[in-house]
Amino acid sequence: MLRKDIIDLFRVPVGKKLKLKDHNPGWKQSAEFEDFGKDAVKERAQEVLTKSLTDLAQAQDLLYADSRYSLLIVLQAMDAAGKDGTIKHVMSGVNPQGCQVFSFKKPSSEELQHNFLWRYAKCLPERGRIGIFNRSYYEDVLVVKVHPELLGRQLPREKEQVGKKFWEERYEDINAFEQHLVRNGTVILKFFLNVSKDEQKRRFLERLERPEKNWKFSASDMAERGFWDDYTKAYEDALAATSTGPAPWYVIPADYKWITRAVVADIVTTTIRKLNLKYPEVTDEQKKRLVEARKKLDAE
Amino acid sequence: MLRKDIIDLFRVPVGKKLKLKDHNPGWKQSAEFEDFGKDAVKERAQEVLTKSLTDLAQAQDLLYADSRYSLLIVLQAMDAAGKDGTIKHVMSGVNPQGCQVFSFKKPSSEELQHNFLWRYAKCLPERGRIGIFNRSYYEDVLVVKVHPELLGRQLPREKEQVGKKFWEERYEDINAFEQHLVRNGTVILKFFLNVSKDEQKRRFLERLERPEKNWKFSASDMAERGFWDDYTKAYEDALAATSTGPAPWYVIPADYKWITRAVVADIVTTTIRKLNLKYPEVTDEQKKRLVEARKKLDAE
Repeated sequence: MLRKDIIDLFRVPVGKKLKLKDHNPGWKQSAEFEDFGKDAVKERAQEVLTKSLTDLAQAQDLLYADSRYSLLIVLQAMDAAGKDGTIKHVMSGVNPQGCQVFSFKKPSSEELQHNFLWRYAKCLPERGRIGIFNRSYYEDVLVVKVHPELLGRQLPREKEQVGKKFWEERYEDINAFEQHLVRNGTVILKFFLNVSKDEQKRRFLERLERPEKNWKFSASDMAERGFWDDYTKAYEDALAATSTGPAPWYVIPADYKWITRAVVADIVTTTIRKLNLKYPEVTDEQKKRLVEARKKLDAE
Repeated sequence: MLRKDIIDLFRVPVGKKLKLKDHNPGWKQSAEFEDFGKDAVKERAQEVLTKSLTDLAQAQDLLYADSRYSLLIVLQAMDAAGKDGTIKHVMSGVNPQGCQVFSFKKPSSEELQHNFLWRYAKCLPERGRIGIFNRSYYEDVLVVKVHPELLGRQLPREKEQVGKKFWEERYEDINAFEQHLVRNGTVILKFFLNVSKDEQKRRFLERLERPEKNWKFSASDMAERGFWDDYTKAYEDALAATSTGPAPWYVIPADYKWITRAVVADIVTTTIRKLNLKYPEVTDEQKKRLVEARKKLDAE
């Protein structure tokens, strides 16, 4: 299980149709479950995660010092797929000064009064930092596509005009937005945590049964489960249309949390490393000043 | 001098080369100076302005009530071309609750740490309002093109790579950004106030000579005058590349302030009117409530 394998294995190809049923929410794409058994794979995943977390902390420090690139991580998924847990476990070793998480909930009326990318564009990470979007502008082609009544007065055209072309324009706007960000030094990673309907049921039941998990359950999550097939279709269309060279999507198996976390951590670390970052070089002029400073301190 | 003539006369055609020397900073494109004499044209311009200001106040009220569209006005020009005066005189009749002006000066270091559109994207007008950008993201393909050292660490690539392709990508990003805004209900008007080098000299001298205008003069304006030809070229390239169907540029003669103001006011008003706005209709349900409210008030 080499790193370059992982990053290639889960990347959504550019310009091709996508069916989520071809992506196993478990781990069977790799033959390792059968070859080595689940426990061995779990152990290996935890090793990868531990290693990645150390690497990630270093990589992030370098990203910050180099200060030419920023990293935007977009997390999308059905409910209970493990977005919060992934953020917690993958990013916990990272200096919070270099990392900001934005969770996008229901938009405010001020936000609805603007172009749909507005509220996200304000929260973009600056150079040297990692920004994590827990849900993102993709909601505007996912939940809003499943429930077009959410558009409300969000656009001047008539409701009847919200057809195929409307969503294609949104994909186009998103691609152009991401292209712009990449050109300006933002590296973009987009993860779809692919949980199965069965596993979601199991996790919902757990939230109902265990008092300390009750707070995580909401009736609206249950209602959205009723639209599973519509969401699947919306994800398939959106991922296919917006997995681009500059900003690819990764479909991450999400039925085993230890797999999800190891794979995400690995892809994040591998991606930062590929940037060939370096600590800023100290010029001769600066070196002279360092020597002078030392002299002054010694003389005190 | 019909309104539709004005709006068509000054619009920069899409996808064509542009030479500013073909655009008279005075008013000779129309034969009216010769036909009627300057004073008659001035008088007519002032009539148009007065009429437009009344119309504009009404149009803006309707824009606000209708609340489906916003209007973004971009003002660009060489120094002393009259941007501030145009804003003051054209927008003075408009309810300030429905109108916001943003003047973009030297970017902060936080702003430089983001994608170049970031600081502008945050200030976009919400539905129902007029937003005026006194200078704009176009500075990033104008002053920054004339002085590429301003890019600084603003992008990860090496300086040598800042060539033709780099600027073309910026034009492309701007066009995609504006396309997105238009699709989301923002109407965009872009005005280049076209002042001649001679008239700029006259206005600079006035600033030096009249104590109450001294504060408007800055040494850096004088320095930029030395780059007149570079700016001309940068404007020609930018206007040609970014005058699009959804977001056209208008080259406004700026050697006579009364011409500038009348033309801008006319184009703004004509544009809002073309939207066919209407006051929100009161439904039967709402009418019933109005009747009930009246009854309650009468019974008090």
